[in-house]
Amino acid sequence: MYSFKNDYAEGAHPKILRKLVETNSVQQVGYGEDDYSVEAKGILRQKIQNPDAAIYFVSGGTQTNLIVISSLLRPHEAIISAKTGHIYANEAGAIEATGHRIITVETEDGKLKPDDIENILQTYSHRPHVVKPKLVYISNSTEIGTIYTKSEMERLSNYCKSNDLYLFLDGARLGQALTAKNNDLTLSDISHYTDVFYIGGTKNGALLGEAIIFNRIHHATDFDYMLKQKGALLAKGRLLGIQFLELFRDDLYFSLAKHGNEMAMKIAYAIEAQGYSFLTPPHTNQIFPILPKAVIRELLRQYDFYEWKAVDEQYAVVRIITSWATEENKVDAFIDSLKGVTS
Amino acid sequence: MYSFKNDYAEGAHPKILRKLVETNSVQQVGYGEDDYSVEAKGILRQKIQNPDAAIYFVSGGTQTNLIVISSLLRPHEAIISAKTGHIYANEAGAIEATGHRIITVETEDGKLKPDDIENILQTYSHRPHVVKPKLVYISNSTEIGTIYTKSEMERLSNYCKSNDLYLFLDGARLGQALTAKNNDLTLSDISHYTDVFYIGGTKNGALLGEAIIFNRIHHATDFDYMLKQKGALLAKGRLLGIQFLELFRDDLYFSLAKHGNEMAMKIAYAIEAQGYSFLTPPHTNQIFPILPKAVIRELLRQYDFYEWKAVDEQYAVVRIITSWATEENKVDAFIDSLKGVTS
Amino acid sequence: MYSFKNDYAEGAHPKILRKLVETNSVQQVGYGEDDYSVEAKGILRQKIQNPDAAIYFVSGGTQTNLIVISSLLRPHEAIISAKTGHIYANEAGAIEATGHRIITVETEDGKLKPDDIENILQTYSHRPHVVKPKLVYISNSTEIGTIYTKSEMERLSNYCKSNDLYLFLDGARLGQALTAKNNDLTLSDISHYTDVFYIGGTKNGALLGEAIIFNRIHHATDFDYMLKQKGALLAKGRLLGIQFLELFRDDLYFSLAKHGNEMAMKIAYAIEAQGYSFLTPPHTNQIFPILPKAVIRELLRQYDFYEWKAVDEQYAVVRIITSWATEENKVDAFIDSLKGVTS
Amino acid sequence: MYSFKNDYAEGAHPKILRKLVETNSVQQVGYGEDDYSVEAKGILRQKIQNPDAAIYFVSGGTQTNLIVISSLLRPHEAIISAKTGHIYANEAGAIEATGHRIITVETEDGKLKPDDIENILQTYSHRPHVVKPKLVYISNSTEIGTIYTKSEMERLSNYCKSNDLYLFLDGARLGQALTAKNNDLTLSDISHYTDVFYIGGTKNGALLGEAIIFNRIHHATDFDYMLKQKGALLAKGRLLGIQFLELFRDDLYFSLAKHGNEMAMKIAYAIEAQGYSFLTPPHTNQIFPILPKAVIRELLRQYDFYEWKAVDEQYAVVRIITSWATEENKVDAFIDSLKGVTS
Repeated sequence: MYSFKNDYAEGAHPKILRKLVETNSVQQVGYGEDDYSVEAKGILRQKIQNPDAAIYFVSGGTQTNLIVISSLLRPHEAIISAKTGHIYANEAGAIEATGHRIITVETEDGKLKPDDIENILQTYSHRPHVVKPKLVYISNSTEIGTIYTKSEMERLSNYCKSNDLYLFLDGARLGQALTAKNNDLTLSDISHYTDVFYIGGTKNGALLGEAIIFNRIHHATDFDYMLKQKGALLAKGRLLGIQFLELFRDDLYFSLAKHGNEMAMKIAYAIEAQGYSFLTPPHTNQIFPILPKAVIRELLRQYDFYEWKAVDEQYAVVRIITSWATEENKVDAFIDSLKGVTS
Repeated sequence: MYSFKNDYAEGAHPKILRKLVETNSVQQVGYGEDDYSVEAKGILRQKIQNPDAAIYFVSGGTQTNLIVISSLLRPHEAIISAKTGHIYANEAGAIEATGHRIITVETEDGKLKPDDIENILQTYSHRPHVVKPKLVYISNSTEIGTIYTKSEMERLSNYCKSNDLYLFLDGARLGQALTAKNNDLTLSDISHYTDVFYIGGTKNGALLGEAIIFNRIHHATDFDYMLKQKGALLAKGRLLGIQFLELFRDDLYFSLAKHGNEMAMKIAYAIEAQGYSFLTPPHTNQIFPILPKAVIRELLRQYDFYEWKAVDEQYAVVRIITSWATEENKVDAFIDSLKGVTS
Repeated sequence: MYSFKNDYAEGAHPKILRKLVETNSVQQVGYGEDDYSVEAKGILRQKIQNPDAAIYFVSGGTQTNLIVISSLLRPHEAIISAKTGHIYANEAGAIEATGHRIITVETEDGKLKPDDIENILQTYSHRPHVVKPKLVYISNSTEIGTIYTKSEMERLSNYCKSNDLYLFLDGARLGQALTAKNNDLTLSDISHYTDVFYIGGTKNGALLGEAIIFNRIHHATDFDYMLKQKGALLAKGRLLGIQFLELFRDDLYFSLAKHGNEMAMKIAYAIEAQGYSFLTPPHTNQIFPILPKAVIRELLRQYDFYEWKAVDEQYAVVRIITSWATEENKVDAFIDSLKGVTS
Repeated sequence: MYSFKNDYAEGAHPKILRKLVETNSVQQVGYGEDDYSVEAKGILRQKIQNPDAAIYFVSGGTQTNLIVISSLLRPHEAIISAKTGHIYANEAGAIEATGHRIITVETEDGKLKPDDIENILQTYSHRPHVVKPKLVYISNSTEIGTIYTKSEMERLSNYCKSNDLYLFLDGARLGQALTAKNNDLTLSDISHYTDVFYIGGTKNGALLGEAIIFNRIHHATDFDYMLKQKGALLAKGRLLGIQFLELFRDDLYFSLAKHGNEMAMKIAYAIEAQGYSFLTPPHTNQIFPILPKAVIRELLRQYDFYEWKAVDEQYAVVRIITSWATEENKVDAFIDSLKGVTS
């Protein structure tokens, strides 16, 4: 039973493990002040072309989201997010647990536009009886596989600046977004257009680890305290530093993401060729084909993947995810199975 | 300029003020242990026919909602509310500030039905990646003037019991609900069908004050600590006790609410007679007529009321509120003005 | 049985009740925007000689403390307080419930000195493994009846400014402090030396109510949201405005406090004349004589007061509190009783 | 420059890295449901002789402490801890940030006794004006290197049971405690005497990882939600499972701890032989010798360790820590240096 259920079913890319073994006995100071973390941050600052960025490594995405958001906001300030946003749909109320409302927007494609935010601002104007929207949360790629274009990002960024809103980008799958075929954004663009974002390691080849990047250093004031207070400061911070060093020293991060995307697109083309459509256009390593329930049942005998939601009596959306670790022969076998059950 | 904007524009019913003056120099112990509070609670326990209820007096509705809810829930538990619910629409994120998500339901009439809740429970089933719905919040009368029938309350109550959900009723305007013409619920029914509810004083003749009633005493364990911790325990608790004593000793509470309702219904009939319709059927002291914008503009020259929302280019919903203090001659004058501007 | 147990055993000063009755039927807008509140704030700004101060009225001291502190601090910031401070000793963890540690200092007299704070700053220097001390909380008069001198306040204020610490003064009994015989501070001095303070009404003649004063307006940014979110914004804000109006229009506030102090001092002299000493020197309306346990037992048959703590087998400290409402003939009777049992 | 500053300066024990490499490409389900985690939990349940224990793996100690404590306590409940306790002294207010006060006890040896707790309960009896002590937090070994005896644990456990208090043991260095020469406790005793405890991996050979053990399963109700909500649920939970599997499959955990203790004791004997004393008797891998400041200065030229606190003009306490990774020849060299500078 091969799994297309998520992009964290395997361990880490072998280069990362090799480096962990190599450096294992070197003594290092703790809590993220180790040489590897320092070096990795230097490389990231170059990649984003922002020598002043404040960078921190933490274990996971939910942790990142809750710490960044609770660090930036005062008690009465709220977040605007697509209803599909990870912070709303998948994090067990982590943000609300820090005291803040998430105001959601229904979207087709998981992306926020200035108009969506404008509507929220108007709805939340009856001060002080309502919360104050203050931070816009977006994901790239989104939780339903779509990506932002450069012009979309630019407009969103300008809108946020004009309205005194923070723009925070969840990059749990940022590699996959930036290596999608129709992408026109660079890592440095992401840094330019957002106030703070993170680069996800866990879903792209690391054992664990996300790199939080504050593009304006004053937004990171005292952020080290926040990490410690929320239990996110690893004693052996080297574990995170070494991984980001390996991922970004030679752009391994992007080649891993590209592989994941290619595997997904290969499946997407095959599905399309069988005449099926998709919930959202397939571009990254998460695709959402709409298949007959009978076909889904058959495929689930040999492959593991997530049944996203029913469409009607006959059809349902499924989510198929590939990753840096997906083997092409497994993809080919899946395509063969698909052809088998649909013909 | 006479105001129909809310039901807290005046002070308190004169009987209350008289009693405050009368008792002023009697020494009492503080923090809600005074004789007046004790007596008022005794009367309330009789009225609800539940000698075991745990009762507490606090200053206001938002305070009540946040303390009751945060006392009952563990960190991962969430609230289900109509989107118009006061806790979602009017309390500046007070509930989220205690760490809990409010899951909202779009409704026509501001009321929750078992099906609404069933849908939420299904959506929130992917444990532990989502919050756990645990408390159902309803208001009676609702924020848009509607009321629950006995059979609606019974079904909701049964559904909550079967699904291990708390049922909490916000009674900021409970008097108005229970004295509406089409009401078939009693105060004792409310106590029977809910786990916890409150009786609003502020919007029905008190200077301030709400009576929180836990129908099952174990739900109130250590609730005194909660009140103190949230800053809700008044040193001179007598101020609240005396008011509830006056309001419930001879059912003044209900006669005040009835007056408010009658004043609103008089206006509602007049509006209906002019051929206008309503956002929700008018039953209590809050009515929501849909009027031509030109008519609204004219009326606003002489009367203060709240423009609720636009319907289209020509029409808008307004909210007109009456209260225990509304003078009938002002109502008559308003009706005359209405007739004047619409003919 | 006459009570010297606290200064909130009676209702409100008759002038306040009279004004409540007088203004009762005047319609006012809600939530603190009423004319009375506006006028009262104007008078207070004159008294403190700071036309730019931001002023808010709330119900009680614990509420004030928790809202002011949680509004000013970021999550990792902490408070420094005397161990006898009300926020540490009497508020059921209200401050910690907003997420902040209170770092305590053992004192003889309930007052903080720059050296105490300096010690704390040194102890809490191992960033980011410790909290960051950021706000100094003091009370005047203190919880054990002592008061700050002008030079003490000045040194504390300078120290806080130099070390980027907020100075917050709890004035639950500020009237009593400023009318003590040995006091050399004015209300305007208090405003000058602190960042934020409050003037307590509940313990000096009001039914309830404290006036929060931010001396620098930017510290109050969005404070209206905080009040609403914590359930502190009364619908009938007029109740607070009217009371402060009466208390400060003609300095009633100070004459009431003076009376309370004089009653306490009369008792203190009598106790001293009997040869007894005190936990702290008696200056305000709270005195802490050290009496033989047998004497205490006898006095408790006729009077209610608080047994503070045992000193040894034979002696204990008691707390005797007088107020604006204390009748001189009751004080005289108490003194007679004291003489009776000690001779 | 060799470091004796902490027990997390190196990576992980080579067996752990080997297993990570070996299992790397095996697909596993995420979020702690992987086969390795399941197997490791089974082994731990056997070791503690409690087949019903609920076990969870998380990244670090602060995270563990804050999630366990906030999961067990209601808002008004407080923790009792030694002032040296990690939650009070080293976690940036992580516990208070979840809303709870830590009530501290001054101790000589970092350990709590029933009398200490009894005193606290008496001090905190003025309900509801104070918090309610509900959880006793202890560490074994303590933050100053001492350990609990079986009879101490038994008395503490009985006292907590009798007073309806949770007993929570921080076992960040539990291996070191249980392999100390004078220890008479077993892992199964720890499970028997506490309500919940954790076994620290980070400070004893793991890259990261602590095993939280609830000895009574009802205390763990919905704990999975808590982990997710606080950002502690690793997508690749296998990383934690594999490490605990390796550490406990053949008692590697205890042999690593024993090595660390032996290295520390070797240094301790040498220090003692030079005539120096200690802050606390040396038993585990953390020792606190009191050395002349001149000696400290000399040693710091070649070795890194932590200056704990000054004793007087001439002497200071230092903290020397060894670990599973400490090389004996480095220990010998340090002893030689010590002899050199002190003779």
